[in-house]
Amino acid sequence: MFQTVAVVGRGRVGSAVAARLVERHIDVRGANDPADLVLLCVPDQAIADVARSVSVGPWVAHVSGATPLTALEPHHQRFGLHPLQTFVRWRGPEQLDGAWAAVTAESEPARARAAWLAEALGLRPFPLDESLRSLYHAGAAIASNFLVTLYRSAASTFERAGAPPEALLPLMRRTMENRFELTGPIARGDRATVEAHLAALAAHAPELTSLYRALAERTRQ
Amino acid sequence: MFQTVAVVGRGRVGSAVAARLVERHIDVRGANDPADLVLLCVPDQAIADVARSVSVGPWVAHVSGATPLTALEPHHQRFGLHPLQTFVRWRGPEQLDGAWAAVTAESEPARARAAWLAEALGLRPFPLDESLRSLYHAGAAIASNFLVTLYRSAASTFERAGAPPEALLPLMRRTMENRFELTGPIARGDRATVEAHLAALAAHAPELTSLYRALAERTRQ
Repeated sequence: MFQTVAVVGRGRVGSAVAARLVERHIDVRGANDPADLVLLCVPDQAIADVARSVSVGPWVAHVSGATPLTALEPHHQRFGLHPLQTFVRWRGPEQLDGAWAAVTAESEPARARAAWLAEALGLRPFPLDESLRSLYHAGAAIASNFLVTLYRSAASTFERAGAPPEALLPLMRRTMENRFELTGPIARGDRATVEAHLAALAAHAPELTSLYRALAERTRQ
Repeated sequence: MFQTVAVVGRGRVGSAVAARLVERHIDVRGANDPADLVLLCVPDQAIADVARSVSVGPWVAHVSGATPLTALEPHHQRFGLHPLQTFVRWRGPEQLDGAWAAVTAESEPARARAAWLAEALGLRPFPLDESLRSLYHAGAAIASNFLVTLYRSAASTFERAGAPPEALLPLMRRTMENRFELTGPIARGDRATVEAHLAALAAHAPELTSLYRALAERTRQ
């Protein structure tokens, strides 16, 4: 569908995307070279400026979860493809494997082109309504960014208890593998243990008590 | 070290433990049979009653993360071995593989026996001070029980946004595999996106706004 793709921005996402397109024998070009598709992998705040600097003609797309398509003005041959994944510099294009991607498109031709790009990158696309983008992105942040916070909070508790934080990893992996089946004191309605946790946190990790309370309340509901 | 082990309680943990001991060719007995070790796998609230019903003589241990060793009175040949894992009925003894276990022991002979049992079960033991038990157990609950809550909150957000909740799984797995490296709007100091998340949650999932706020605040710190 696209013979040439200009990948603009080679940060964590752009590097993985460009490397994957090269693997698929697609002609990947630099930011200022002519191309059938200009794919913006720049920081969210830069998307609108960079889009305005691109001459109208090629398709233009971004890979941001948080940014509306209107940021791609003045281009109307446009779409958004957000890889629902967390990327790091020390991994390569294999980071895309198995991940899903949210497609925002305003027309059938745009949807078809987004599907082509998802396929080329090895992503599983699903449609996302522009009006629900922030809600979707909030869910992604809860699942990923706050998972980091959850681990760091638990690890900090373990460190203060003299327990090895790495012991949490098999527990967390299995919790996922078990399809998030709830076990533990709240599942058992064991309020005494929850109170003991809160007392221990108040004594040794007071900065975690309000987070614990908010999570416990949500868990009970 | 122990020739015979009476496993009392065959719930989620007791079933896996008994099956593993049988696999290791250890003579596993019922609750009322004489044994070298009586291993209580009963609910936390039942431990003290069941311990009192056991004649003094054999070693007595429990597998609870939340319960102090004093619950094993009148027995003084005692220890605690808490498998740091979440167990389900639809899996077997392989659930123990790769998991760590907290050992609470008051003497060298008790420690040696707990180490023997950990080895027999396939668990990696670490010592836990009795006075820090609730802090340790709070950390385990944060990592496991609240991980369930985190996923369910994110999945509920996705459902309302029309996005497939299963798309969260590769994201959460990679977040763990990446050793919980923080990415996303809070890592970038992007307050506008965080505010957009909160506005979207207030409109579509108001029950999640206070949890989001608590987690965002903790993530920033």
